[in-house]
Amino acid sequence: MPITLVSVAATAVLSLSPQENAPPGLEAWPPEQREAQLALEEALLAGIEPASLAEWHEKIASVPHDAGTPGDQLVVETLARRFAELGLEVETHEIHVLLPRPVRAELEVIAPERISLPLKELRLEEDPYTAGDHWKDITIGWNAYSASGEVTAGVVYANFGRKEDFETLRELGVDCTGKIVIARYGGNYRGYKEKYACEAGAVGLVIFTDPKDSGYGRGIPYPEGGYANETYIQRGSILTMPYVGDPTTPFRESTKDAARLALDEIELPRIPVQPVGWAAAQEILGRMRGESAPGDWQGGLPLRYRLSGGDDLKVRIRVQQEFALRKTHNVLGTLRGSEEPEKEILIGAHHDAWGFGATDSQSGTIAVLEAAKAWSLAAKAGYRPRRSITFAGWGAEEYGIIGSVEYVESRIETIRENVVCYLNLDMAATGTRFYASSSPTLREAIVAALGRVPQPGDEEGRSVGEVWSGRFGDMGGGSDHVGFIALGGVPCASLGGGGSQGTSYHSAYDTLHWYRQVVGDDYAAARMVAQAAAMVSARYATAPVLPIDPARIGTETQRHLERLTTRGRDSGFFEDGSSSVATEFRAIDAAARSFSERAVALRSELHAACQGGALGAEALAAINRELQDLDRCWLHDEGIPERPWFQNLYAASDETSGYAPWILPALRYAVDHRDRNALRDAEPRYLAVFARSRAVLEALAETLSNADAQRIHTSR
Amino acid sequence: MPITLVSVAATAVLSLSPQENAPPGLEAWPPEQREAQLALEEALLAGIEPASLAEWHEKIASVPHDAGTPGDQLVVETLARRFAELGLEVETHEIHVLLPRPVRAELEVIAPERISLPLKELRLEEDPYTAGDHWKDITIGWNAYSASGEVTAGVVYANFGRKEDFETLRELGVDCTGKIVIARYGGNYRGYKEKYACEAGAVGLVIFTDPKDSGYGRGIPYPEGGYANETYIQRGSILTMPYVGDPTTPFRESTKDAARLALDEIELPRIPVQPVGWAAAQEILGRMRGESAPGDWQGGLPLRYRLSGGDDLKVRIRVQQEFALRKTHNVLGTLRGSEEPEKEILIGAHHDAWGFGATDSQSGTIAVLEAAKAWSLAAKAGYRPRRSITFAGWGAEEYGIIGSVEYVESRIETIRENVVCYLNLDMAATGTRFYASSSPTLREAIVAALGRVPQPGDEEGRSVGEVWSGRFGDMGGGSDHVGFIALGGVPCASLGGGGSQGTSYHSAYDTLHWYRQVVGDDYAAARMVAQAAAMVSARYATAPVLPIDPARIGTETQRHLERLTTRGRDSGFFEDGSSSVATEFRAIDAAARSFSERAVALRSELHAACQGGALGAEALAAINRELQDLDRCWLHDEGIPERPWFQNLYAASDETSGYAPWILPALRYAVDHRDRNALRDAEPRYLAVFARSRAVLEALAETLSNADAQRIHTSR
Repeated sequence: MPITLVSVAATAVLSLSPQENAPPGLEAWPPEQREAQLALEEALLAGIEPASLAEWHEKIASVPHDAGTPGDQLVVETLARRFAELGLEVETHEIHVLLPRPVRAELEVIAPERISLPLKELRLEEDPYTAGDHWKDITIGWNAYSASGEVTAGVVYANFGRKEDFETLRELGVDCTGKIVIARYGGNYRGYKEKYACEAGAVGLVIFTDPKDSGYGRGIPYPEGGYANETYIQRGSILTMPYVGDPTTPFRESTKDAARLALDEIELPRIPVQPVGWAAAQEILGRMRGESAPGDWQGGLPLRYRLSGGDDLKVRIRVQQEFALRKTHNVLGTLRGSEEPEKEILIGAHHDAWGFGATDSQSGTIAVLEAAKAWSLAAKAGYRPRRSITFAGWGAEEYGIIGSVEYVESRIETIRENVVCYLNLDMAATGTRFYASSSPTLREAIVAALGRVPQPGDEEGRSVGEVWSGRFGDMGGGSDHVGFIALGGVPCASLGGGGSQGTSYHSAYDTLHWYRQVVGDDYAAARMVAQAAAMVSARYATAPVLPIDPARIGTETQRHLERLTTRGRDSGFFEDGSSSVATEFRAIDAAARSFSERAVALRSELHAACQGGALGAEALAAINRELQDLDRCWLHDEGIPERPWFQNLYAASDETSGYAPWILPALRYAVDHRDRNALRDAEPRYLAVFARSRAVLEALAETLSNADAQRIHTSR
Repeated sequence: MPITLVSVAATAVLSLSPQENAPPGLEAWPPEQREAQLALEEALLAGIEPASLAEWHEKIASVPHDAGTPGDQLVVETLARRFAELGLEVETHEIHVLLPRPVRAELEVIAPERISLPLKELRLEEDPYTAGDHWKDITIGWNAYSASGEVTAGVVYANFGRKEDFETLRELGVDCTGKIVIARYGGNYRGYKEKYACEAGAVGLVIFTDPKDSGYGRGIPYPEGGYANETYIQRGSILTMPYVGDPTTPFRESTKDAARLALDEIELPRIPVQPVGWAAAQEILGRMRGESAPGDWQGGLPLRYRLSGGDDLKVRIRVQQEFALRKTHNVLGTLRGSEEPEKEILIGAHHDAWGFGATDSQSGTIAVLEAAKAWSLAAKAGYRPRRSITFAGWGAEEYGIIGSVEYVESRIETIRENVVCYLNLDMAATGTRFYASSSPTLREAIVAALGRVPQPGDEEGRSVGEVWSGRFGDMGGGSDHVGFIALGGVPCASLGGGGSQGTSYHSAYDTLHWYRQVVGDDYAAARMVAQAAAMVSARYATAPVLPIDPARIGTETQRHLERLTTRGRDSGFFEDGSSSVATEFRAIDAAARSFSERAVALRSELHAACQGGALGAEALAAINRELQDLDRCWLHDEGIPERPWFQNLYAASDETSGYAPWILPALRYAVDHRDRNALRDAEPRYLAVFARSRAVLEALAETLSNADAQRIHTSR
């Protein structure tokens, strides 16, 4: 298509000067709109205020608000009221989901002596939230969806309870059959500890927080410092289904009357599981009399960790949970866009918690609220965005990413059609050291937007973009972006600030007192995160041409093919070879390379096209639809092997820890399972992704060419 | 010298066949003597018996025998009697040396509350030695040569008390002035903890054994397992003088009437130092209230380690030691050689201990005794060695390598003239995983000799030589080889077996009960070590031509020049460059290379010469003298910078930990101190070493050439 080539050359020359003068990230903005954009961004930055963050933190983190409880309902109402106050369109999205509540739990050493072990944190004089009236609403330590039951048995220690730890036990000849396994937190998602313990034949599981990993091994414990003390208990869900969201309604919205799976059709945990603090764990571990554990299994308790308890040690565990369909809500507030009102940028964080949740997730939720406030003020001042921005508080995330997934399932077609990107701020403000994970298409724009955000505490007055390493993580599992990626094919980012000296994660100590003592009462971290979200949303909500990078996903694919090659060669699944990509990946690699090359060229054309004067509405709509389609090309309606719910062939959560990302998951599955059939099935699917993606690029090229021809015509 | 070239070629051809058939290590033996040698070695291996090792262990490790005490005298008499029984020439070498004894010690927390801390191990029912009558002869925990005195002060934690730890404290703004420093064992020689604490302004020092490093962090504690328990205390000397041996008589034998330095002329420790177990340390560390210590300073106690104690914490330390000249002895037994009786191979271990010393050093001493027995039996059966073998039990090693150094100082000229090599077996049998350090000239022969020693527990019936990695350590400080190397220029090796699950090092728990429970009561480790020493001594005592490798010291020099180059470049002392050796080392490197090349050629000639028929006595004597001279070429009578006592330019102990080796120490000094003058001074000394060494090689070549010409003449 010679016309395209000519127009590239022409616009490249034309655009040189304006591009040079453009603020970073605004190169693709029509020059005449840049000043207004910068003014909007200044207004948004100024609208995000520590005092307001602190005030709203107090309003939504002063009472325990586990999903489905009265405290949860209060938070939902507070959020809805706030969005209404800000002049946003409010949606309170009601869902009915399977939520257990703890009824009773007991953990005892019963031989060689009888000792009842504590299952709740100590109240602390120093922390008014633990000393106050709401303490009665704090649950005992529990792992949601544990089997109910009572067992008495001997004990085996399984380190972190990872797949490889149970393999080590087998190699060492330690039999878990009929035993209560005790494992420490860390190394994987807690649900997999139960799954692997169960597979190894265990009849019960105790999970403890080890002082080496989270307590005095890391720093001074709470309340003097911020780290876990001896009674700190990490609560949390232990679901490990091949899908997330409400366990009874995969693929479907869990409305009041939804068709549901019966409990016996769901892969729920099968043994009683009890989390404890290390003071309780020490009573068990200190009475074990078996063989010394391997060197790196040693934790921070003052005793030798051993593999088995010996015949004299018996532990009793009793867990009773009540499963019921309970009502909770997602709360959404939308600032309607002026020109493409149906197109939507989402910024969200879950609002539920284990207890007070000052950090997890209200430190993120206040950033969402404050970004909403800043946008609301800006809109009132005349800066209404081109596209809609929706601020979301998700319900019941802690139980299994339920609220956000039900939301996605409730309107999957609309989301695929209209959601430009989702920014997740789960537990996002625990320090001022910025971090980000994101889909490849968003990275370039995020980096540019961060150039606008002041880095807190930087004496040289630099921006987050200047201070941050720029190293993005890949999007894995574990939070509310999962539904958007896996079902929606929506590009997502997770933004946050970390680096504080401590942890209150999922414990009764996740209070405002902990947060203000450890993270700080200046709200610099929350301000930074809210400003980052505001800046990224400002770009996506207002840019005439969406700042979606078409090229990066191709180079990322190539990079991950290389990593999978190394992985496969290390395990012997692939033959060694001199090339960086296994023979089996050649065709996909070539497709990815060809795609990237074409995309890089088109990206230049795209930037250039933006400089050549305002594009017509029709051309803009076509360009943006095509850019948006690039991420959707990765969806495949059969999903990935063994997990059909995960329909995105680019990214999924992993299948052994639940937290880590699997990039190119159908290939990763084949490599990890050494499964040649899976590899054979996956290849055409990835080739089809690139064929679809390539078609989108060609459509984009055509659009650009037509738009340019039209403009050249007009300008003449 | 064309004759040499001709003779090499000739003998190379002649020797092909016998060399191929020779057992490893016997290639240089005259073919007709090999069978007798193998028979001798079989006899020696068979003469080393577990029952006898166990019996003698009982005789010399059943009572506490700290140097200069009645228990020490008993051990001395036992060793002398044993050597006499074996028909050896016995020498009981009396020395009078400065030995402190602990009179009293107190350690207390005095604020915020008063707690007296335990300074002696707990008696254990399970261990009859701790429960028995001799327990009263076990001292409190103490560090010999501590200053006496009493101080009360606040506390600073200094990690391992290394030079870099005190630098970190300075960087973090923690002032040790007027404080009692508490530091954990490990990372350096304990004496340097005092030295650096003192330099930092501390007024007292508490050294504790951390459970992470030696206790439950490593394995199950004693008495159930073998690791340190909470009352285990590591005793030990804290001398850090620029020489070793008796502090009052550097360079001189410490006879009864020796001229001596006054105490105020000696660099003795200047502050009170008290070692403790971790139960005591926890009482201090658990009351510290200052800033959290850096991550890698965290030990294994169940608390956060902190940098300073804060104002409320006061600790009192009182140490009283009585310094006196006390009598002790080296005990030596010599099996006189038949043909070169003045030439001597020494095998030794110290006989003194902190308490019972079942492991340190009687596990080595029994190996010396058993090797002596095996040689004695062999001699009686007609296998009298060509050269003399002397078995040694050294006195007062624990106080500062005193006995062996006084022995060397008492007859330095004889040692330089006659000692072929010294094999050190300090604390040598704590497991069956073989290890060795040695001077470069001995390595080839040691590896060959190990091919004769059965590896205990190896199911395939392999030898130690086949199982061992073959990775030699360099000879550093810390034991009785130091005098032989530093003053005598004698090539040395340290042989041993490690790998047991535990430590009783320098504690009251270093008992026969600990040893037999943890190392084993089968004495497989001690047998392996005794057999290794017997095999190596068999080669050096009987070989017509000494198996001294002339070439390795040149290549080792080059290797260490490269390492020093990296070190100097990393610190910025040397400029970066593409060559592996710094410009400043070029001349020495060239000399080393040239030396090695010449030595490799000569080594072939030498091996060949041995095959060509018996060498004449005069030629043999000349060859052996020249081979022996190669190690002596490294002696320099001005010693190394700041430490004139260390006269060997190839190896010294390091100057900041006391244990590690410094290879090429005058160069290492220059690099570590970034001292260009020292570098300038050192270069000509190293060039002179290689000039002398090269002259020795040329003399050897001349000798070989003459011997060969003579033999060619004879054979015609």
